[in-house]
Amino acid sequence: MNAKAFQDFYPDDVSHCYGCGKLNQHGLQIKSHWDGEESVAIFEPKPYHIAIPGYVYGGLIASLIDCHGTGTAAAAAYKAENREMDTLPAFRFVTASLHVDYLAPTPLGIPLEIRGKIKEIKGRKMIVSVQVMANKKICAQGEVIALPMPEKMKSMLSPSQPEKKPDKV
Amino acid sequence: MNAKAFQDFYPDDVSHCYGCGKLNQHGLQIKSHWDGEESVAIFEPKPYHIAIPGYVYGGLIASLIDCHGTGTAAAAAYKAENREMDTLPAFRFVTASLHVDYLAPTPLGIPLEIRGKIKEIKGRKMIVSVQVMANKKICAQGEVIALPMPEKMKSMLSPSQPEKKPDKV
Repeated sequence: MNAKAFQDFYPDDVSHCYGCGKLNQHGLQIKSHWDGEESVAIFEPKPYHIAIPGYVYGGLIASLIDCHGTGTAAAAAYKAENREMDTLPAFRFVTASLHVDYLAPTPLGIPLEIRGKIKEIKGRKMIVSVQVMANKKICAQGEVIALPMPEKMKSMLSPSQPEKKPDKV
Repeated sequence: MNAKAFQDFYPDDVSHCYGCGKLNQHGLQIKSHWDGEESVAIFEPKPYHIAIPGYVYGGLIASLIDCHGTGTAAAAAYKAENREMDTLPAFRFVTASLHVDYLAPTPLGIPLEIRGKIKEIKGRKMIVSVQVMANKKICAQGEVIALPMPEKMKSMLSPSQPEKKPDKV
């Protein structure tokens, strides 16, 4: 496992995401790494991420699957080009669709293990399968269809935000 | 539109959800109402609910769809029994699965309109179709498969939480 997470390699101007941006002080700041062919992130929900007492709310689980999925897609894109994540051009993926099956209530108060696997690569599109586990039990099974951030979207980056590394997006 | 939202009728012991619980001070506290045959909620994301500068992150959109979907399912269950939401027994739905198609980037800094519609009722299962709109443009299209909270789940409610109205759950 590398010390730096996938998300630590995102260029600063696309590192604001509430779910995974290293620059979002209010956010979840999830950190994903390779573990063999799978990607893994460990995240411990806060007490207020509650659904019913004792259990995690589904929206957080969806967020973890989403951001871990796009992170895994980006990391896999470097892998496919046999490049390290600190090389240019940088990859950043967005979510085209997200699906989550909630299989069992997810207990609150323990770290969750989020595991991703590339299910399919179709041209630029990556389909990432993601499981959320608590105490090694699968509580949710998700799928993220991720696409490289479109050029149009990059050009929409708010001009009020400093774009420190526009050549890297 | 009634003054009280669907979520305001949830019994206290199932009103902790980060997305929609009236008792979660850290949460989103979404509020859904009928608007004819559709349900509607208005929610303005906070500046930190960012994806890339100027746009809302997908996990929040998934959360809004999820909680508005289960709220709509509960309200529809009362409607199907021709009952007001302040009558017993109380309905509370959980999410079996959630699907979101992200159709366009969702602008940050304006109120979002979340619209739900019952697509199908199959026994106890409700399929709710939900759209998230910004400036009347559909940014995300979602579907929630909602089920009444299972008896087993009700019995799991943490004993450390006061269950003020166990007969209403």
